Amino acid sequence: MDLDTGIDDALAIAYALATPECDLIGIVGSYGNVLMEDGVQNSLNLLEMLGHPEVPVFPGLPHSSTTDSFAVLPISAQIHGQNGVGEVEIKKANRKAEATSGVDFFIEAAHEYGQDLIIVPTGPLTNLAAAIKKDPEIVELIGNVTLMGGALTVPGNVSPVTEANISQDPEAANEVFRSNLNLTMIGLDVTTRTLLTTTETQQWRNLDTVAGKAYADLTDYYIDAYKVTSPHLGGCALHDPLAVAAAVQPRLVETIELNMKVDTQAPFAGRTIGDETRVNVPALHTKAAVQVDKDRFVADFMEKLTSLFAKN
Amino acid sequence: MDLDTGIDDALAIAYALATPECDLIGIVGSYGNVLMEDGVQNSLNLLEMLGHPEVPVFPGLPHSSTTDSFAVLPISAQIHGQNGVGEVEIKKANRKAEATSGVDFFIEAAHEYGQDLIIVPTGPLTNLAAAIKKDPEIVELIGNVTLMGGALTVPGNVSPVTEANISQDPEAANEVFRSNLNLTMIGLDVTTRTLLTTTETQQWRNLDTVAGKAYADLTDYYIDAYKVTSPHLGGCALHDPLAVAAAVQPRLVETIELNMKVDTQAPFAGRTIGDETRVNVPALHTKAAVQVDKDRFVADFMEKLTSLFAKN
Repeated sequence: MDLDTGIDDALAIAYALATPECDLIGIVGSYGNVLMEDGVQNSLNLLEMLGHPEVPVFPGLPHSSTTDSFAVLPISAQIHGQNGVGEVEIKKANRKAEATSGVDFFIEAAHEYGQDLIIVPTGPLTNLAAAIKKDPEIVELIGNVTLMGGALTVPGNVSPVTEANISQDPEAANEVFRSNLNLTMIGLDVTTRTLLTTTETQQWRNLDTVAGKAYADLTDYYIDAYKVTSPHLGGCALHDPLAVAAAVQPRLVETIELNMKVDTQAPFAGRTIGDETRVNVPALHTKAAVQVDKDRFVADFMEKLTSLFAKN
Repeated sequence: MDLDTGIDDALAIAYALATPECDLIGIVGSYGNVLMEDGVQNSLNLLEMLGHPEVPVFPGLPHSSTTDSFAVLPISAQIHGQNGVGEVEIKKANRKAEATSGVDFFIEAAHEYGQDLIIVPTGPLTNLAAAIKKDPEIVELIGNVTLMGGALTVPGNVSPVTEANISQDPEAANEVFRSNLNLTMIGLDVTTRTLLTTTETQQWRNLDTVAGKAYADLTDYYIDAYKVTSPHLGGCALHDPLAVAAAVQPRLVETIELNMKVDTQAPFAGRTIGDETRVNVPALHTKAAVQVDKDRFVADFMEKLTSLFAKN
């Protein structure tokens, strides 16, 4: 996983840990919802709270491929809280991040695990693009990249044409989308259809466990933010956990095969769209999800997370 | 049919006439590729050349719902010729257009034919939007609208976000897309995958008939224009005929169900996209084509048109 941890990233970590088919070999830190360093710390804290202090966390790149610094946007702080986890206090982990960089971890994992490796980025695609640039061979080695990001058939959420993750680094995203990676895009097309409400989070609070209470509180923060930013949805979108779920159970989503690109010029920068120059080239590598079995996913998500929180 | 006749509109007329399942009850004239009056005259001339002077042609609205005049864009004249049919001289028809307006014809046809009525607009949606406004009841009466226009999963052709037909009158298109019409969008997503080259048009020229020669010449003009405007395609796109074909044989295309809207504000005006406020409302009425059986369509298209041109 490559996370800018973030509330829905926190939910994605829990989903991955609660999924037996998923062997979480590492988390790479990115910037976006929070500073990279804060996201790494959040991942460490959450893993420990959820009883999995053995999962290594690697620091990724702290800013986009075309900038030399990064500051959290006010809208990100509004949605995820200043600390990224809805101002909920999570006990600080006893350990630190690995010394290896996230970019090198991707390269090493690609060579070690090959087709068994699934990368799930749920933040900007800066780390993955940097890894491809450093070792282009990994494009053919990696089994699949299932990413949360982009918007193909619906408007974006930071502008009418761009989604938050892709907007952070359109150039890096364009490199990833135009590569030969086996790539599945889980965009706003489907994630805004998988919603959680306080009815569900109350079930976690009722467990009366540390994790159950923390996750109920941080998710309620997120639900409250959605009431302001996306009142038409009637809940919070399960963006990042859906990407993990689709990586493990591809049939949760319907996809279309399409050679894609990412626009890099204003006012369309960050738009994920078909590449008109390759519209007649068979799309062997890139799929975009356009429909989701929302009932099945939300039921599966609740079952897994409630069971995990009951034990922690 | 609602046409701004135009070269690919001319091909669409021929396809409709050559399709036995299709009873072409009328052509409504629109503006776009040419002035409305010129498009009406082209339709009359082509119908007569193709041996079908019995099909009535109705004058539509001459400009968009938000302007009070219309001038042909230089790019339209470049692609379709100043006269709309690639500077090819077609013998002037012996008759004139009907006195009834295209808008009233839509309303009368909806009441007379109901669910049997399929409307195929291949120009701006100005006439159809005006008919709905004048008699909202027709929305429930009309069987289906299969339109050529828009771009959902690929960029536009007049800007990165908008396709030519929709760009002429985004407000009218938005009315049509947001109505309860049973609507299938045949956009650039699929039409830029159905291509014709001079190899095919030479078969028409070889027929040594008036229609065969005229259609070979006007289509070659279009193919030459595509070499300049869309060199990556390697042929000309069969935009308008594909809409007629998909109206008659819906299984030629794969569609996704999606509640859609049309952006009306710059710089995104004319973009056809999912309506984020209805993403969780079942899409009962609107489909967008995302894939096409191009080999089957082009073979069917050539068989029908070659057979029609052989007799005229």
